[in-house]
Formats: sequence, C-alpha cells, structure tokens
Amino acid sequence: MTNSKLIYLDNNATTKVDDRVVEVMMPYFSQYYGNPSSIYEFGGKNANAIKDSREIIKDFIGAKNQKEILFTASGSESANTAIRGVLSGDRSKNHIITTKVEHPCVLNVYKQLEKEGYNVTYASVNSSGELNVEEIYDAVNEKTALVSVMYANNETGAIFPVEKIVEKVKSINPNTKVYVDAVQAAGKININVKDTQIDMLGISGHKFHAPKGIGALYVKSSVLLTPLIIGGHQENGRRAGTENVPFIVGMAKAALLAQEYQNVEDTKVKYLRDKLETGLLSKIYNARLNSSASIRVPNTTNIGFEYIEGELILLNMNDIGICASSGSACTSGSLDPSHVLKAMGIPFTALHGSIRFSLSRYTTEDEIDYALENIPPIIEKLNNISPFQNELKELKRRKGLI
Amino acid sequence: MTNSKLIYLDNNATTKVDDRVVEVMMPYFSQYYGNPSSIYEFGGKNANAIKDSREIIKDFIGAKNQKEILFTASGSESANTAIRGVLSGDRSKNHIITTKVEHPCVLNVYKQLEKEGYNVTYASVNSSGELNVEEIYDAVNEKTALVSVMYANNETGAIFPVEKIVEKVKSINPNTKVYVDAVQAAGKININVKDTQIDMLGISGHKFHAPKGIGALYVKSSVLLTPLIIGGHQENGRRAGTENVPFIVGMAKAALLAQEYQNVEDTKVKYLRDKLETGLLSKIYNARLNSSASIRVPNTTNIGFEYIEGELILLNMNDIGICASSGSACTSGSLDPSHVLKAMGIPFTALHGSIRFSLSRYTTEDEIDYALENIPPIIEKLNNISPFQNELKELKRRKGLI
Repeated sequence: MTNSKLIYLDNNATTKVDDRVVEVMMPYFSQYYGNPSSIYEFGGKNANAIKDSREIIKDFIGAKNQKEILFTASGSESANTAIRGVLSGDRSKNHIITTKVEHPCVLNVYKQLEKEGYNVTYASVNSSGELNVEEIYDAVNEKTALVSVMYANNETGAIFPVEKIVEKVKSINPNTKVYVDAVQAAGKININVKDTQIDMLGISGHKFHAPKGIGALYVKSSVLLTPLIIGGHQENGRRAGTENVPFIVGMAKAALLAQEYQNVEDTKVKYLRDKLETGLLSKIYNARLNSSASIRVPNTTNIGFEYIEGELILLNMNDIGICASSGSACTSGSLDPSHVLKAMGIPFTALHGSIRFSLSRYTTEDEIDYALENIPPIIEKLNNISPFQNELKELKRRKGLI
Repeated sequence: MTNSKLIYLDNNATTKVDDRVVEVMMPYFSQYYGNPSSIYEFGGKNANAIKDSREIIKDFIGAKNQKEILFTASGSESANTAIRGVLSGDRSKNHIITTKVEHPCVLNVYKQLEKEGYNVTYASVNSSGELNVEEIYDAVNEKTALVSVMYANNETGAIFPVEKIVEKVKSINPNTKVYVDAVQAAGKININVKDTQIDMLGISGHKFHAPKGIGALYVKSSVLLTPLIIGGHQENGRRAGTENVPFIVGMAKAALLAQEYQNVEDTKVKYLRDKLETGLLSKIYNARLNSSASIRVPNTTNIGFEYIEGELILLNMNDIGICASSGSACTSGSLDPSHVLKAMGIPFTALHGSIRFSLSRYTTEDEIDYALENIPPIIEKLNNISPFQNELKELKRRKGLI
C-alpha cells in the first residue's frame, strides 16, 4: 500500500474474517485435530462440532432439517454441485432458465452445459437491474429441468423476488427444480427457505466474515442430488473429503454474528451506503446511479462515472487506500465491461467507468467521509485528462453547471 | 476423553496442524483479507502469497513449473478433478487400470465410471501388500485412457513403484495418462515428478500437518484438463472459487517443514514405528504383521490381532487415550473389514482384528512405551472373552507357549 490507510469498500468481493470467528476456529487446528470420521472420542468431538455447526447453518437459512445442509469449499462448488447434481438424471429434460446477470461461476456452468446439448434461456433485467420475471414464466415448459436465479446481484445489490419466482415456476411445472445462488444475500438479508419451494440454495462463508474456502449448499430433502466429488461417506455421501472442521465451525459463528448484526446492516450499513451514494452523486456531475433497483441489499451501490475509465479510477483510489471494484473479482483481469451492466443497458459512456462500492459492518462514518472528500478530486483529475472533453462539457451544460 | 492422555497414533487419518503453520496463516484471516483477484494492492498482496506458495509446492513435489500446480480443497477433490478431467475427451478410450487397494475416494470414482460405461481393471496385491505390477502391464492396451496407482497405501504404508510403473505403461501406450494418488506419500517420503512421466499427482495438506480443507493437484503442462468446478478464472481457469489464501499459505509452510523434518521421518519416526511394531509382535502371541511390504513409508504399521474384534480393541484403547484405526477414516462406520487387507488375503481370523498405527514427528518414545505397556493387557483381556478359545489355545501351542 503506498498509503497506509485502508478504506475497504469491496465487501462483495470478500470480507474481513471477524476476530470472533478466528477465535472459535483456533482450537480445531492444533488442539482438537482428530478426524471427525474416527471411532475414538478425540475424533468424535469434531463430529459433534460439525453437527452443531450444521444446526446453526440450518437455522441461518431457515431450512427444516440438518440433513438438508451440505458443507462445500466455496460458493462456486455449491453452484457446480447443485446444477450438475440435479441435472444428471433425465437428459430429455434439456432446458434450463437462468438470468443474464448471474455470477460468472454460475453463468460459465451454463455456457458449458450449452456445449453439452442443453438449451439455456437467459432472462433479462431492466435498466435498474430488476429482473424481468415474466420472461422466466414464459419460458418454463415441460422440458425445463432447472430454473436458476440469484437472490441478490453482486454488482448492483438488486434483490430478485426468488420466493415469488419459485412459486410461479412450480405452478407451471412442478418438476422443474429451482436453484438460488444466495452468495450475495446471506449475511445481508434474512433467508428463510422453509417457507418457499426452493430446491437448492448456495452460500459462501467469505462473503459474511467467515474465511475464504468454505461454503454451504441447501438441498431440500425431497431432491435427489448426484455428488460432484465422489469418495468417502462424508456429508451423507454427497461430498467426499475430510471435513474442514475449523472453517465449518467458523462459518457457523459468522452466521450467528450475521444474525446478531442484521439490524446493523439494516440501519448503520444502509445509512453509510446511502450517504456515500447520495454524496458522490451530488458532488460529481458525471456520476450516475447504476444500482437503482427498488429493493437492494443494504451494503451495495454501483455508480457510473461517465467518459472516464474504471481501471484508472480504481488505481487512483488504491493510491489513497480506498478499495473498490469495477465488477466481480472473479472476472477482474478481463478488459470486458461488466456483463451485468451491459445487460442493464447502461450507456457505453458510463459502462467503462462504473464502480461498485460494497460496505460491511466494519465500515465507519469516518471512512465514508474520507471517501466523499477524496474521490471527487480523483474524478475531477481524470475528467481533465479524458478524451471526451466535449461530451463532458455538454453534460455540465445539461446539468446547468456552465 | 475418559482418560486425559492423548497418544495420537492415527496420523494417516489426519494430523495435528503444526503451530508454525497456524502462525503463518493467521494474518490472512483478519489482516490481509483482500480478494487475490482484486486490482488494488491490498488484494494483490494475497495474489503474491499464493504465487510464493505455489512455488513452494512446486518444489515440494519436484514439478518443473508453477503452472503445473493447482490448489484444491482436498485429496478427494484432487482425485476427482484429475480422473474426471482427463477422461472427458475421447469416449472410445474407455479402459482404466487401477489397483484393488486405492483409497475409497479413488475407488468410488471408478465404481461410478463403471456405471457410466468404462471398463476398469483392478490390479491385485500380494500378501505383503505389494502391488502385482505385471497385472497392470498386461492390461494396458490401445483403449487404456488412464492408469491410476497410489504412491503409498494408507493402511499398510506399502510404497508402490510408481516411477517404474509409469515408465512401463508409457512404453506400451504413450497416450495413456497416469494419475498418482500421493496423499499418503507427501510429507513422508520425497516426491519428484519431474524425473518421471507421471501426468497427474494429488496431495492433501492435512496428512502432513497443514489443515483439513486444502490439497493440491499436479498436472503436467502437456496434459489438457477439463475443470471439475467451473466459474471464475482462478487457478488458470482450472478450478473456480475464491482462493483459500490462509490454507494455501499454511500448506506451503507445512511442505517446507516436511522437507526440513524428512530426516526425522527417516530416523526417529521409523525407529519408533519399528519399536512399536516389534514390541507388539513380541509381546502379543496372537499378533501378526499385516504390513510386511519390503518398502514402506516410515510411520505406518498394520497389525492383526487374531480371533478378536478390531472395534473392541479401538474402544478399549480409546479408554486409555490411544487413538488408532481399523482402516481408512473415510470408511469408518462401515462394518465391512478393510478392502485393502481383504485384497492382501489376510486370513479371516485376523481381518476383523486388524489395527493401523500411524505415527508422526510429534510421536514421542514415552508414548510408544506407554502403548507397548498398555496395549498387551487390552489384547489379553479381549482374548479371554473371545469366542475362539480353542483356536487361541492352538495358536499358543503352535508358538510353543503352552
């Protein structure tokens, strides 16, 4: 860091592990290190720790039964397991419906499935990032094996009406399975699968202050799942591999903390996000709100800075210690603009200069004030070197600033 | 633990995480928690930590190039990724050769592949647990897509001549790919893939004092691998999911320590294993050595106690604080005797009373002395309640004890 400051506004990419999470994990490294599958008490202790953690995650997403919770190593593994695991049956049902704005880990699975002969319908979103749900309903037919919709979008924070969608989909074809990628919802809003007909739902620990390398998958007890990783009897035969006991225990603690801090998300985090958003929009004339969906997770905003380059904005923010991103971390390194913003029809002029800011319960008002003070001069500087001087002047004129 | 003592002799099931491993992981939870894929320095720091770790693991198994190392979440994931990933091409090459004594995570993949139309040849072992390598060579033909042989057996410790096997296999069919499950070899003996023609090799961190939940897969640069977990660009597009930075860093430290302690494995660990083995065999008249392979990893012994039940032995040892196992932890809970010992033709009379003891660099001579003092009375007690009194008496007579 050229600047010793760290204003971390990229919590949709990953989060700081809560110290209390680290604390509960610690004994499972060097003290209670037995294999949970062992017959002796030293291993059984860990089997119990997993059981207790499974109960907590069950409650965290509102499942009915512990057996519906499967621990995985990531949100990506959860998605791959769910999608592959539920499709492996009847190949005559070769139709899948998803959205244009799913996370790459989900979209890339569908791109691969298309190569394997599946037909995939991609539902669109409107310019606010809201899902055009009718496109899903119109597409469901007797061949539709799977509908896969994210709970909340990682780039805009838009919450999709998954409960309504699953209800409607099942009313059209009760055999269609529904997978919900809840990676960006878990820890930010309440999830309650048992009052829905959702068949499968994936979460990732590192998005809510557990470590990277642990996730979970809800699989409704009536759903038959073919495992992705075959081997030992772990996870009821649905995911082989010695269990990552410390991270399982850690994710459970993180889930308890997320529930405890839900009101902080709803109040402080939302207040700071709104302050940042309105502040940047009012202070910067070429800023536009990309994330104008009516229902959003409380921590996310996405702002387009017209006629300048996102990568330059990020690098300049990096110099003063502010971390944010231009899209999903999983697609960084690519020069393509965000597939989510493209699907929203964000104008070309803003597409390349769009920045996602995502807060957490660790974000302070001082940090937001610092961002509000220091980002506008960066944008101003970049505006001055933009090759689009005429367009910027025109924008200023339209806003009555000159 | 009814007894506060802990004599952990089940290191092939899992190991204590070295305190120095825990130490290097710690900063990556709450301090350097950025996403390695992020553009800003706070994330890039983690990308560098992964790069350094990959270099260490590359050296640990003697690969040529960092790009040949893929981080996974377990030995099981490594195996599933390697096997599935290399087979997905030409379905006319539908023949696989493996051994009867592979780990369940590998064997169960082949059982599944048989259902999917593959023909699998299972090579046998002799009564010492040594592989009948000629059976492999005799089976290789133009349809053989894959030969899959473990480096060291988890139950007997027998080391298989994988370098010789791969050389011979390639001389018969150069297109046949070779996967080596080195989960029980890594950290116990030196591995050097670059002087071999091995195509893929899997290891698991928690078998050498790194945590559960991290593994690696070597894939020779000339081998095309279809990923198991699709999504983001991580691991060169071959394994999606935000990287488990702390565990990657931890496994690298564990690898460095394993190299540093290699001579301890070869001397102290081997000495203590031999002391335990010869001690039990000399003190207990119905004990027989199951693990008599001429080349073995230094830490493992497998002893059959004839005419008594392994589960009872384990539970009685548990009461005095000794942890050991009757087979792979991944098959525990099953009442079937070990598939490895069955393949060796271990007589029925010893099959059900066979115990694997596996030591580590943490094992002390005091612990081995305690085991040698306290296990014989347990066996004596169980002998006295065995329903096979006549057989035990006959055994005693044959040994000239009565």
